[in-house]
Amino acid sequence: MNINKESIYSSETQLRVRYGETDQMGYCYYGNYAQYFEVGRVEALRKVGMTYKQLEEMGYMLPVSTLNIKYFSPAFYDDLLTIITKITEQKGVRLVFEYEIYNESKKLLVTADTMLVFVNKSTMKPTTPPKEFVDLFFDKK
Amino acid sequence: MNINKESIYSSETQLRVRYGETDQMGYCYYGNYAQYFEVGRVEALRKVGMTYKQLEEMGYMLPVSTLNIKYFSPAFYDDLLTIITKITEQKGVRLVFEYEIYNESKKLLVTADTMLVFVNKSTMKPTTPPKEFVDLFFDKK
Amino acid sequence: MNINKESIYSSETQLRVRYGETDQMGYCYYGNYAQYFEVGRVEALRKVGMTYKQLEEMGYMLPVSTLNIKYFSPAFYDDLLTIITKITEQKGVRLVFEYEIYNESKKLLVTADTMLVFVNKSTMKPTTPPKEFVDLFFDKK
Amino acid sequence: MNINKESIYSSETQLRVRYGETDQMGYCYYGNYAQYFEVGRVEALRKVGMTYKQLEEMGYMLPVSTLNIKYFSPAFYDDLLTIITKITEQKGVRLVFEYEIYNESKKLLVTADTMLVFVNKSTMKPTTPPKEFVDLFFDKK
Repeated sequence: MNINKESIYSSETQLRVRYGETDQMGYCYYGNYAQYFEVGRVEALRKVGMTYKQLEEMGYMLPVSTLNIKYFSPAFYDDLLTIITKITEQKGVRLVFEYEIYNESKKLLVTADTMLVFVNKSTMKPTTPPKEFVDLFFDKK
Repeated sequence: MNINKESIYSSETQLRVRYGETDQMGYCYYGNYAQYFEVGRVEALRKVGMTYKQLEEMGYMLPVSTLNIKYFSPAFYDDLLTIITKITEQKGVRLVFEYEIYNESKKLLVTADTMLVFVNKSTMKPTTPPKEFVDLFFDKK
Repeated sequence: MNINKESIYSSETQLRVRYGETDQMGYCYYGNYAQYFEVGRVEALRKVGMTYKQLEEMGYMLPVSTLNIKYFSPAFYDDLLTIITKITEQKGVRLVFEYEIYNESKKLLVTADTMLVFVNKSTMKPTTPPKEFVDLFFDKK
Repeated sequence: MNINKESIYSSETQLRVRYGETDQMGYCYYGNYAQYFEVGRVEALRKVGMTYKQLEEMGYMLPVSTLNIKYFSPAFYDDLLTIITKITEQKGVRLVFEYEIYNESKKLLVTADTMLVFVNKSTMKPTTPPKEFVDLFFDKK
């Protein structure tokens, strides 16, 4: 299923850049955004109705398969960032998220996307998500 | 200048996955690879003949502009990883690196590329790299 | 000045354990707490009336001189932690913070203290804090 | 058993401060040392003759119970650090490590100690270490 990007599968969360996340350029280190996207994903799933934790407890893992980031402008220490996360595709074993990160002046700092793959914890093989999860998408249509 | 990928602008470095870099899946956390690529870049520049530190001391910063990663297979705690880093393009203000990460069984775990941009520390504007740096590439041809 | 621990120089802040902060034991990695304490310090200073950012802009740095942590019980992924931070001493160049971290079941997970030292950014020597900062403590008495 | 500090239970390992480990003071962030000590512990155990990984595979976990750090002088980006790790006590369920970190000019930057506790992975209760592990200490006397 390709999900309409203007859909309800969009969530917003905020976090502050920590001191330890800056580097000696004074920028938020480029590698930290992967954690921020994960914070966004977690909230997006919580909003859809099934937490990442529940998925793990049901025997699924969701390793990241691809990550693509474009950095337009740096974030700085103590900046309050807004992460907008959209679930844009859930097809077969795949789950695609898109992200935008803004600072308090509403400046777009970063865009990114990640593809995750459902994996069965016992077999360690890719697998389709549980029916309860798929239904969450159809229910909300 | 487009640099031949089979060229000498390739370097190899190794590191071990730290315990704190694993996550509760038992995988090396997907966000840590950005640090590994940076370790690769640092060694690649050292090999070419100008360290990242020297570039900073000459008044340049090199923020990352794009990062793309494909994760094929996980790395685990205490795995000794080999990072192969290639400088594949240096044109205008841009510097492109490509990476491959292998484990001890020579399994390819991750491929990635990053584009970095030379920035003048005083003006904070993109700028071409210092002549000494560009010459390093031509000298070695 | 020794500050009464039951005083107003106490603040409370919350954060959620991120997936990337867990390790393969399934625990929040022991090294991440240093960042959590820093989040606590930042909020404690904000509450007292002068942000860490303002102190840096006034020409001060506040490197950590000692850190002592006791780990009683682990934090897990997605746990909502409460960090209680107290400023317990400001004497000469020194600033002492004490911390307690609780999970949602109000279980005490960690206690810690840090001593920070005011450093003049230009001379890089220890220095007493700015009068405006010291006054904040006396004003509130 | 109290272990003589001048004993063979001492190991030395080196690592370079990564760019992402610096903060906007230009210092290696104070929270990163916990990872460095872990790198030291891992090598110390490897030298004694049983890796941390083997201990985990035998059903033991070794969470950290206390961490105390004194920071004397900062480490900077690209500094090659030497970590000296000593196992100074193995008694009952406890294992104590002491650390010193030096830079290339042989300046002492940091001293620290950690107490770890052997935990049975199935019961999640503190437990004495496996006999094979304890014997390693006596054998080497």
